[in-house]
Amino acid sequence: MAPELETGLPSIRQIQTLIRENREVELKLITNDLLTGKVRWQDPDCLCLYDHYDQPTIVWRQAIVYMKPKL
Amino acid sequence: MAPELETGLPSIRQIQTLIRENREVELKLITNDLLTGKVRWQDPDCLCLYDHYDQPTIVWRQAIVYMKPKL
Amino acid sequence: MAPELETGLPSIRQIQTLIRENREVELKLITNDLLTGKVRWQDPDCLCLYDHYDQPTIVWRQAIVYMKPKL
Amino acid sequence: MAPELETGLPSIRQIQTLIRENREVELKLITNDLLTGKVRWQDPDCLCLYDHYDQPTIVWRQAIVYMKPKL
Amino acid sequence: MAPELETGLPSIRQIQTLIRENREVELKLITNDLLTGKVRWQDPDCLCLYDHYDQPTIVWRQAIVYMKPKL
Amino acid sequence: MAPELETGLPSIRQIQTLIRENREVELKLITNDLLTGKVRWQDPDCLCLYDHYDQPTIVWRQAIVYMKPKL
Repeated sequence: MAPELETGLPSIRQIQTLIRENREVELKLITNDLLTGKVRWQDPDCLCLYDHYDQPTIVWRQAIVYMKPKL
Repeated sequence: MAPELETGLPSIRQIQTLIRENREVELKLITNDLLTGKVRWQDPDCLCLYDHYDQPTIVWRQAIVYMKPKL
Repeated sequence: MAPELETGLPSIRQIQTLIRENREVELKLITNDLLTGKVRWQDPDCLCLYDHYDQPTIVWRQAIVYMKPKL
Repeated sequence: MAPELETGLPSIRQIQTLIRENREVELKLITNDLLTGKVRWQDPDCLCLYDHYDQPTIVWRQAIVYMKPKL
Repeated sequence: MAPELETGLPSIRQIQTLIRENREVELKLITNDLLTGKVRWQDPDCLCLYDHYDQPTIVWRQAIVYMKPKL
Repeated sequence: MAPELETGLPSIRQIQTLIRENREVELKLITNDLLTGKVRWQDPDCLCLYDHYDQPTIVWRQAIVYMKPKL
C-alpha cells in the first residue's frame, strides 16, 4: 500500500484547493527556475504542473522552495 | 491522522509567538531569496507567509536558511 | 529484502508508463544540468537514463528537480 | 512530547558548551552567508544566534555547513 | 550491527558490477565537480573512488548527482 | 542514549583510521569550500576538523561532498 498524503496538513489541503479551483501558481525551485502552471495532482514525492500548452512537468517536492497562487 | 507540530520545541514555539503577535519577519531561502512578510500558519512541511499586499506564499521548510523578526 | 517502489503513487506510475512507452524525457538536475534520454529503470534511490548513443547514466533521485516528457 | 536533543553527542555537547560560555561563533551557511554571533539555544531543528545588536536569528540546522568558535 | 546495502536494488547492483569489472566512471557532484576514477567500495553513506594515481576519495552519496560508466 | 556511529561501515571506519593516524585531509563542502585539517572526532551529525593553528571547525555531515587524505 502506498503511503498516503497527509491530508490533514494545511499545506497539503491548500494545494488540494488550488487543484480543485484550477488556479494558476508560480513554483520557485532550488535551481532558481520559476515555473508557472496549474497543479493537476500531488503525491508524497511530487507535484504535477501543467503549462499553457497543457504539457505536464513532474516536479519533485524536494526541489520546491515556494508556491504562490497567481492573482 | 496528520503528524503534529512538535510544539514543545523552542523553534516551533517562537514561530507560534511570531504568528500570534503578527510580527513581520525576514525569511532567507536556499536560493538566496529574502522574503518579507507575516507568518500566518506553520505545519511540519511548510510555513505560509503573507506579504504587504496580503498575498500568500507557501514556503517549504526544507528551503529555509534562517528567519529574523524585523525590528 | 530490498525496499520496493511505491507503485501506488502517481509519480512512480507515470515514470513506469514513460519507461513502457519508451518516451524521451528531459530531466532537470539541481546542478542545472538538463539531461535528455529514455528512462530504462527506476528504483527507490535512482533512475537510469539512456542517451542517444545508448549510454546509461545513473541519476540519483535526490538530485532531480523535474521531469518533462518530450513532445 | 517533543523529540529531545541527543545530548550524548559530541557536536550537541560542544554547542551546549559554547552557549554556556557565551562564546562568539561563526556560522557558515549553504547560501555562503557567514553569520557571527552567540548561540542562545539549540533544538533538534534549529539554532538561535544573537548578533551584536542582540537581535535573534533562527537558523535551520539543515542549512548549516560549519561552525567555528571565534578566537 | 551496521545497516546493510540494499543489494536487491538495481542501482546498488550496477555499482557492484562496476566495482567488480574495475570500470572507470564519471561522478557528477552537486558542487558541479566531475570526478573520474574507479569505484572501490560502496556503503550506505559513501562511495570510494580511486583516481589515476591510485589515491582514494570518499564521496558522500548525498552529494552525488549522477554516475556514468566511461566508454 | 545517543545514537551510535555505525562503526561497521567502511566510511566510518576509514575516518576512524584517519583520526587515529592523525592524517591531514581535504574536505570539500557543498558551498565549494575546501577545508584542510585533521579530523579529531566524528559523530552521526558532524565531524570536527582542526586546522594548522589547532583551531576547531565543526562540520555538518550534510554539507560534506568528499574527503581526501592528503599525500
